[in-house]
Amino acid sequence: MQDHVTPRRVVILGGGFAGLFAARALRRSPVAVTVVDRRAHHLFQPLLYQCASGILSEGQIAQPLRGVLRRHHNVRCVLAEATDVDTGARLVHARRPDGGDLRLPYDDLIVAVGMRQSYFGHDEFAAHAPGMKTLDDALEVRRRIYRAFEMAETAADDRERREWLTFALVGGGPTGVELAGQIREIAGHTLDREFQRIDSANARVLLFEGSDAVLGAFGPRLAHRAARTLTDLGVELRLGTRVTDIDERGLSVRGQDGTTTRVAARTVLWTAGVEAPPVIAALARATGAKQDRAGRVLVEPDLTVPGHPEIRVTGDVMSLNRLPGLAEVAMQSGAYAGRVVRHSVEGRTKQPKPFKYLDLGSAAYIARGRAVVKAGPLHLSGLPGWLVWLFVHLAFLTGFRSRMGAVLSWAVVFVTGSRRERAFNLPEAGASAGRAATPQASAPPP
Amino acid sequence: MQDHVTPRRVVILGGGFAGLFAARALRRSPVAVTVVDRRAHHLFQPLLYQCASGILSEGQIAQPLRGVLRRHHNVRCVLAEATDVDTGARLVHARRPDGGDLRLPYDDLIVAVGMRQSYFGHDEFAAHAPGMKTLDDALEVRRRIYRAFEMAETAADDRERREWLTFALVGGGPTGVELAGQIREIAGHTLDREFQRIDSANARVLLFEGSDAVLGAFGPRLAHRAARTLTDLGVELRLGTRVTDIDERGLSVRGQDGTTTRVAARTVLWTAGVEAPPVIAALARATGAKQDRAGRVLVEPDLTVPGHPEIRVTGDVMSLNRLPGLAEVAMQSGAYAGRVVRHSVEGRTKQPKPFKYLDLGSAAYIARGRAVVKAGPLHLSGLPGWLVWLFVHLAFLTGFRSRMGAVLSWAVVFVTGSRRERAFNLPEAGASAGRAATPQASAPPP
Repeated sequence: MQDHVTPRRVVILGGGFAGLFAARALRRSPVAVTVVDRRAHHLFQPLLYQCASGILSEGQIAQPLRGVLRRHHNVRCVLAEATDVDTGARLVHARRPDGGDLRLPYDDLIVAVGMRQSYFGHDEFAAHAPGMKTLDDALEVRRRIYRAFEMAETAADDRERREWLTFALVGGGPTGVELAGQIREIAGHTLDREFQRIDSANARVLLFEGSDAVLGAFGPRLAHRAARTLTDLGVELRLGTRVTDIDERGLSVRGQDGTTTRVAARTVLWTAGVEAPPVIAALARATGAKQDRAGRVLVEPDLTVPGHPEIRVTGDVMSLNRLPGLAEVAMQSGAYAGRVVRHSVEGRTKQPKPFKYLDLGSAAYIARGRAVVKAGPLHLSGLPGWLVWLFVHLAFLTGFRSRMGAVLSWAVVFVTGSRRERAFNLPEAGASAGRAATPQASAPPP
Repeated sequence: MQDHVTPRRVVILGGGFAGLFAARALRRSPVAVTVVDRRAHHLFQPLLYQCASGILSEGQIAQPLRGVLRRHHNVRCVLAEATDVDTGARLVHARRPDGGDLRLPYDDLIVAVGMRQSYFGHDEFAAHAPGMKTLDDALEVRRRIYRAFEMAETAADDRERREWLTFALVGGGPTGVELAGQIREIAGHTLDREFQRIDSANARVLLFEGSDAVLGAFGPRLAHRAARTLTDLGVELRLGTRVTDIDERGLSVRGQDGTTTRVAARTVLWTAGVEAPPVIAALARATGAKQDRAGRVLVEPDLTVPGHPEIRVTGDVMSLNRLPGLAEVAMQSGAYAGRVVRHSVEGRTKQPKPFKYLDLGSAAYIARGRAVVKAGPLHLSGLPGWLVWLFVHLAFLTGFRSRMGAVLSWAVVFVTGSRRERAFNLPEAGASAGRAATPQASAPPP
């Protein structure tokens, strides 16, 4: 900190990839950084589906934000949800978990709140089809997957059994594809020989996608390979379909020919869309910024909000040059925003160069030994794709203590199919069997 | 299975230590075993507090019951909660998670449902003071512990900050003592240098116990050592106190002199008592069996219910010779019940010897390098106690793949204080920042 001068206050909304990389870019800058997040952890979102499918634990993909930033002595972490921005007073309004209000003054504001699951106006779907954006979502998906097999085992009749053994996934992006592959592997491999009345390998996995390809963002060639790999795994692709209704027994889908079909499935998972959280609408109102259909903020080439050089929007909520909502875009835009603030604090007067995204490629895991990778002219699938996927994910996990644990978990699931993190709760139930509390504290035996 | 004869049907209620050991004792017997549990996992309850305090993941202490019993070809696992026993028709009524009914006929019934947390008639306390019996409880306790420090960091004033940094634990048995030690270690060690506005080491931990000693079951000498160790750690013991009220801001306690004190504490955890679940009352009604004050069933020396040689009660819900509610008692009584059934199937006509509990000792972990152990004439505390604790827990974890992981987690927390499983959710909040779903599946950028 500079001696008697109050340091410049940088408020970062969100502790995901964008927010974390913005804070890191400011590490050696004489500024006072406040990172505000509604969760206390930084989530390694690309592996969320592995938490949902029982390979990794929560702690392996989610680290306490203040632990990650412990050595950043100019950073303060605040557990609260940003609700509004007062651009005149340069204040962020935030709500603590107990409902209490916080006011956080800023000189620079970096917005990195990310996107949340969207049900395209059908929020009533959420109760029957959990999304895949948060740790809570992943645990709910895990519960539904493993519970479905348990319910099938004790089903009253064949029809009910078939319904419990049918999994419908809505959305053919990376998360949907990864989950579809995982459920097929759980059914055929992990649960092998564990049930008496059902053959878990018979579980059907249906993947519904509105466009005519899964993993469309990877280009037609890899999309085609991914589709073939999924089909080989036994995943039934339903492309060009639109979901019109979901309830606890299944869903209705309309095909491209306009006919509506009813699909009985007791497990429906939703990865089909995203939308900006409410604070972004508040920001747009306060600044007059424009938003795209999903609510992202249209930014200038230097990521500022038009007319507000002190506000930068980064990561998934930023709308610029149709950049996709990927971890890499978030990291690079967050780091850019932090760097520009640092340069300004250092007194550099030169206009910053516009943000330029360097596409290092994208990867999606489909099944054991099979992934698709696109990196510039390089298109890989199958085993080569999987090896690159492994390398990239290990590299990005580097900062995390959990890397060793993840490698071990991956090795075990690869070789044996066994998944360690299969425990799930049924919150509607009460207490269960186990060790009693101490005798002297409980009612004494007679 | 025997060729054309229907095998004898053994229904085991509960997949805790008692139920698991009963099933194992029947492994090579030509019987059809059904294990019914309201959870799909077997929980290693003695380490539940380590899951609550962020050292171990759920998967490290909870294994899928049907995974554990995979090689027992005469066992079927059923996810359901036993609700009633029809002793005339020899049927167990059970409720599946979706509310559906199951009827499970038996020739032999082994009851091993365990005890649940009791609030001594004050069930309204539960909302403000979670118990420590299930995995759900542990995650709720974890959330409250780590959230409290976050809330203290952003507290509006000193008073609120002090209240968030005050933890009140009700019950001075092993779980309460272990949790008290854990919270002091988290405060002084794990969270060291992570906060800016608070000094986490200042957190107060108060342990309320109705009797005049913590760990009374270990005898006066070890109880005294445990009390001294806790005091050294900074835990404030409030012995001879009775909790009369709990709300979200704290609790009221009555001392032995009859005066009532109000203690402001935003985190209250409850480990003070246990009671039998409702199916035990149904069993008692059906059989005329007597129950003790906490609802345990008074059994014959061979663990049968008086007048019902086909029904055996084992583990924590069994009331016999004032045996304590310990994992070891559960294992030995479960194994005994399974063995007696096996002998009967084998045609042995000799009256079985009464159940005799072999006390192998008990151990409680207090803090890094400090535990108390009582094994017959052997009384250990401090580092020797801790080494024995370590050995015993490793030995009992043997069957579990997670043993290696647990050793690693213990080594890391011992040396560095770092805890991997600190992620917690705030279910009241919505989605958070992170990777967006695939571009093609979400609303397109403009």
